[in-house]
Amino acid sequence: MQPFVHRLRVRYHECDAQGIVFNANWFTYFDVALTEWFREAFGSYGALVTDHGADVVLAETTARFRGSARFDEDLEIAVAVESLGRTSMVVLFTARRGDEALVEGRTVYVFVDPVSMGKRETPSAVRERLAPYVAGTSTAAG
Amino acid sequence: MQPFVHRLRVRYHECDAQGIVFNANWFTYFDVALTEWFREAFGSYGALVTDHGADVVLAETTARFRGSARFDEDLEIAVAVESLGRTSMVVLFTARRGDEALVEGRTVYVFVDPVSMGKRETPSAVRERLAPYVAGTSTAAG
Amino acid sequence: MQPFVHRLRVRYHECDAQGIVFNANWFTYFDVALTEWFREAFGSYGALVTDHGADVVLAETTARFRGSARFDEDLEIAVAVESLGRTSMVVLFTARRGDEALVEGRTVYVFVDPVSMGKRETPSAVRERLAPYVAGTSTAAG
Amino acid sequence: MQPFVHRLRVRYHECDAQGIVFNANWFTYFDVALTEWFREAFGSYGALVTDHGADVVLAETTARFRGSARFDEDLEIAVAVESLGRTSMVVLFTARRGDEALVEGRTVYVFVDPVSMGKRETPSAVRERLAPYVAGTSTAAG
Repeated sequence: MQPFVHRLRVRYHECDAQGIVFNANWFTYFDVALTEWFREAFGSYGALVTDHGADVVLAETTARFRGSARFDEDLEIAVAVESLGRTSMVVLFTARRGDEALVEGRTVYVFVDPVSMGKRETPSAVRERLAPYVAGTSTAAG
Repeated sequence: MQPFVHRLRVRYHECDAQGIVFNANWFTYFDVALTEWFREAFGSYGALVTDHGADVVLAETTARFRGSARFDEDLEIAVAVESLGRTSMVVLFTARRGDEALVEGRTVYVFVDPVSMGKRETPSAVRERLAPYVAGTSTAAG
Repeated sequence: MQPFVHRLRVRYHECDAQGIVFNANWFTYFDVALTEWFREAFGSYGALVTDHGADVVLAETTARFRGSARFDEDLEIAVAVESLGRTSMVVLFTARRGDEALVEGRTVYVFVDPVSMGKRETPSAVRERLAPYVAGTSTAAG
Repeated sequence: MQPFVHRLRVRYHECDAQGIVFNANWFTYFDVALTEWFREAFGSYGALVTDHGADVVLAETTARFRGSARFDEDLEIAVAVESLGRTSMVVLFTARRGDEALVEGRTVYVFVDPVSMGKRETPSAVRERLAPYVAGTSTAAG
């Protein structure tokens, strides 16, 4: 498996009155990490749409909060594919500060046609490019 | 069971480039509905903290997306308690536009001491005030 | 002059780690107030676009901060037109908590064609509907 | 003068239904640039507070919109000091995409005591560290 990690820094306005990252903003971080992951996999998020005729929409998303993060902290968001289905995929996100896992996300994305926004099969080229990120796969064999 | 429903309107900046409410913003809507629910149950969110010495933090949250919403649409966020535990509670959120359920949320909240932020037992007065909202309870018997 | 006032409550995530509304969010409040003002004047923001073939874009905006606001506070955003030009208008926003003016905004909006997004003359029907809100005009004469 | 430039990429949720960066988010970008500028000048924003006993609050801020930016675009936010007063400073922000200036900001910051939040004189050490960024100064003469 090929690991993908996006680094970002907590912005001031992303923290709430408790001084910690507001819960909904973790989903925003996962979204930013998805964009950067697609940049590595496809060239850009836009290339997924224009080159492969596919976009993704969220069907379900979950976050488990184990810790919190404060303004100006440096975080890493790791991305891995739990499973790559015929029309959807499950993506795991782990937000870490150093060695500490703070928030774990799991999102079910459905592939859609960018124009009709209707469900479509995962294009095989997309499947190939995402395969190396499937958790549990061997990078050597990949 | 006593239903609680908060009404809100989609703001322009809450929509993304697809013209629909950005996924993370649904969690913000649920947070706003929690505040309004606590206003009904305790007088205000602040009263929960000052009168009952308790605050809540999220342990886990999930959203299931069945539909989307656009700018200026009028939504209803229904709140119900799935279970009320010794130190936590599970709250269900349903965002509707008219009769259509758009997004369903489920959040596990842990009761904490507002100063130490350490886990604490659900105060009995808090438990009493939230009991009427537990799903499946009879309001008459309530 | 016909006053327009929109009431809103500070949401938890709109506050920053200092516990006060984050500076950029005041511009969001002004945007929300604009939408509600257009609802009163045109039926809805969307009606401005579809019925009058006009949209507005910001050319310049300023906020003067005299006070701050905290979570759950009830605010009033007053809207008035400073001037209504041939292709633009200047709108004044005043955010108050009770009698206290907290933040004053002033925004120059340019009328544009909703399709080309190019500058266009203020439609006369739009001008008529906004005239009552011009500061200094007499409502009786209006 | 020593130029400071912070580079950032437009995030998906920062764009609105028109597909462009929502107006209030430009002020968020300026805030992020301020934090990064303070990192260069003081080590971190936090160091300004802890080492120098000073924080800044906004008294007034303005943005002039000359262009717009879309999802995933790479922007540069240049920061310069227009003037450095006894208790305040005026900072200029210029957001560019390549050579094109999109949005110009101008913010009046007041130095405050981080505990009382009351106005205080600009500490001389702070003044010295910010002096190189004053527009029009010669870097050679420093």
